[in-house]
Amino acid sequence: MKYFLYLLFLIVTPTSLKAQDINIGLKHQLFSKILDEKRTVWIHLPESYNDTINYPEKYPVLYLLDGDWQFHSLVAVQESLTGGYYNYMPEMIIVGVLNTDRSRDLTPSKGKVIHNGKVIYQTSGGADNFMKFLSQELRTYIDTTYRTNGYNMLEGHSFGGLFTIYTLITKPQLFNAYIANDPSLWWDNKYVFHLAKKNWSKIALQGRILYLSLANHNNSEKDKFEHTLSIEEFGKNILKKQKTLRFKWEYFENEDHGTVSLPASYAAMKYIFKGICLPVKQIPENTNLITEHFNSLSDSIGFNIRPSQQLIANMISYCKQVDKAKSAEELLQYMIQLYPKNNNAKKQLQKLKERDL
Amino acid sequence: MKYFLYLLFLIVTPTSLKAQDINIGLKHQLFSKILDEKRTVWIHLPESYNDTINYPEKYPVLYLLDGDWQFHSLVAVQESLTGGYYNYMPEMIIVGVLNTDRSRDLTPSKGKVIHNGKVIYQTSGGADNFMKFLSQELRTYIDTTYRTNGYNMLEGHSFGGLFTIYTLITKPQLFNAYIANDPSLWWDNKYVFHLAKKNWSKIALQGRILYLSLANHNNSEKDKFEHTLSIEEFGKNILKKQKTLRFKWEYFENEDHGTVSLPASYAAMKYIFKGICLPVKQIPENTNLITEHFNSLSDSIGFNIRPSQQLIANMISYCKQVDKAKSAEELLQYMIQLYPKNNNAKKQLQKLKERDL
Repeated sequence: MKYFLYLLFLIVTPTSLKAQDINIGLKHQLFSKILDEKRTVWIHLPESYNDTINYPEKYPVLYLLDGDWQFHSLVAVQESLTGGYYNYMPEMIIVGVLNTDRSRDLTPSKGKVIHNGKVIYQTSGGADNFMKFLSQELRTYIDTTYRTNGYNMLEGHSFGGLFTIYTLITKPQLFNAYIANDPSLWWDNKYVFHLAKKNWSKIALQGRILYLSLANHNNSEKDKFEHTLSIEEFGKNILKKQKTLRFKWEYFENEDHGTVSLPASYAAMKYIFKGICLPVKQIPENTNLITEHFNSLSDSIGFNIRPSQQLIANMISYCKQVDKAKSAEELLQYMIQLYPKNNNAKKQLQKLKERDL
Repeated sequence: MKYFLYLLFLIVTPTSLKAQDINIGLKHQLFSKILDEKRTVWIHLPESYNDTINYPEKYPVLYLLDGDWQFHSLVAVQESLTGGYYNYMPEMIIVGVLNTDRSRDLTPSKGKVIHNGKVIYQTSGGADNFMKFLSQELRTYIDTTYRTNGYNMLEGHSFGGLFTIYTLITKPQLFNAYIANDPSLWWDNKYVFHLAKKNWSKIALQGRILYLSLANHNNSEKDKFEHTLSIEEFGKNILKKQKTLRFKWEYFENEDHGTVSLPASYAAMKYIFKGICLPVKQIPENTNLITEHFNSLSDSIGFNIRPSQQLIANMISYCKQVDKAKSAEELLQYMIQLYPKNNNAKKQLQKLKERDL
């Protein structure tokens, strides 16, 4: 055995090793005039972002609260649900927004919470200001730095979920889709819950989407019970009173407050973009299905969403694979129609035509 | 509006920005004598790995096949299920093993597969050799480079799942727990399936754990149908004939072959380490519960697993938070008993005792 180890070390010596980082994004710092402080955001760009074959693509943006904690999960969700022929969400830019004073930024009112005899969350009530930072400074920074397509999503958990619901009911136009995981609707005598209940029918929610999750709290403590009850009431009774909002609420029996976000984010993406997955095997027979499919998806999300160049390219390669050259050519033409600046597609089409002459 | 943008750029100028990578691991290259080629592995170390407060901790290792594709998911699963008071799996080192010739390494026999008139997977049948690489060269490299505790897991999807089942039935002693996601049991006229069926009762599986997942294939094609049928038959009828194996098999109706791995990995960790999560709120009243809890978990996984120093430290801080100083002290003593080289715990205990004098 010793001899074997000795041999092994001969071949696996430190000098034969090269180590290199595995990166999933970049940390950026920017100074917010609105909040009068430096803020850190983590930014993940989708895999195709630096693709050099197709014309530079534009992407939706997901703004993620508590951004350092949830970031890895959303990157993994995106990796799992995109790529290849079967896509269950579009590729997107993920912007994780890190906290400085979490309870200040994510709560919409001054709440009085006493814990072990002390008043906590004393700086609470800054949500409106933080919303301005997100929708003005940060949004402008992201939109001017990256290739965004105008579809914006907001996701938050706990206090972040509270902020997400608060944004939906007070400034629904700011984001296209909202994901609120186990939101702290108990906050300040159910401030947001009551605000929603009161104004619900008057809020213009056309084209907006909400995914709401509730974790299992075992309902042992009174405050947890209030937490659970308010989300249930919101999910079961209030949401459905607005006919224009597309929403889903889901109870995760096997998840607690700390674990719910990964499975809920996964379920949320599948819900919001339900219908995005192409009927791959039928496309070579009828390429029009892609247009029909994405028209229907656009209706469902209230935003004109196109198949990405990568997805069309994948379908072209699939058509070739099953010997449907004509369909491959149709899809190339479709690609050029949607992306007139895609010179690579034009060259490919030219080649095909020359071959046919 | 223009004026506003101008103002904005004054405060968010490139010079005010610092960008920094977000890393989740390191890429390593090593030369395998067994395979006679250079291999790349991606390695993720758990968050507490470089902790400087507690005595250097040792960790289980997860060997992940198709390691670059599944890596982000497993990092996210670990992040979601560990940390704080509530842990649903132990922290572990994740080793993603990248492919060079996937169908050579992951298949146990020469299979003849014809696709579009061509024989594919011509190099197949190298699983035994690849298993040697994993269990000898790579294992030794990992165990001598990192602080490992001897608990080893193997996870694979598709061909990787086939390899995982093949390893379980031919060399069950190599890993403690096995995760096979939508494994290609159809391979070579169900070679592995028949091997398992034939030898099942004779294999020594004491203390081994298997988590097996099946995706929804819509059963439209004949080969997919065989794929599905063989996993179902394996999960429903064969596995239970071995009383010593702890196993779970699960059908994911909403997942296809490409998406099943993230939710299945999440479910697998929760299944394998079921019972690891402490009854947090009861601990301050009865600190012995931790020992009882981990003894029972050790029985269930067939390996002596201890609460991590980080977990005990978290429970100590919880006891202090709920004013149970005596329980905090008991837990410090427990920490020292389990980790006699943890000088920080000793110092803390000393301080407590001096205060009591």
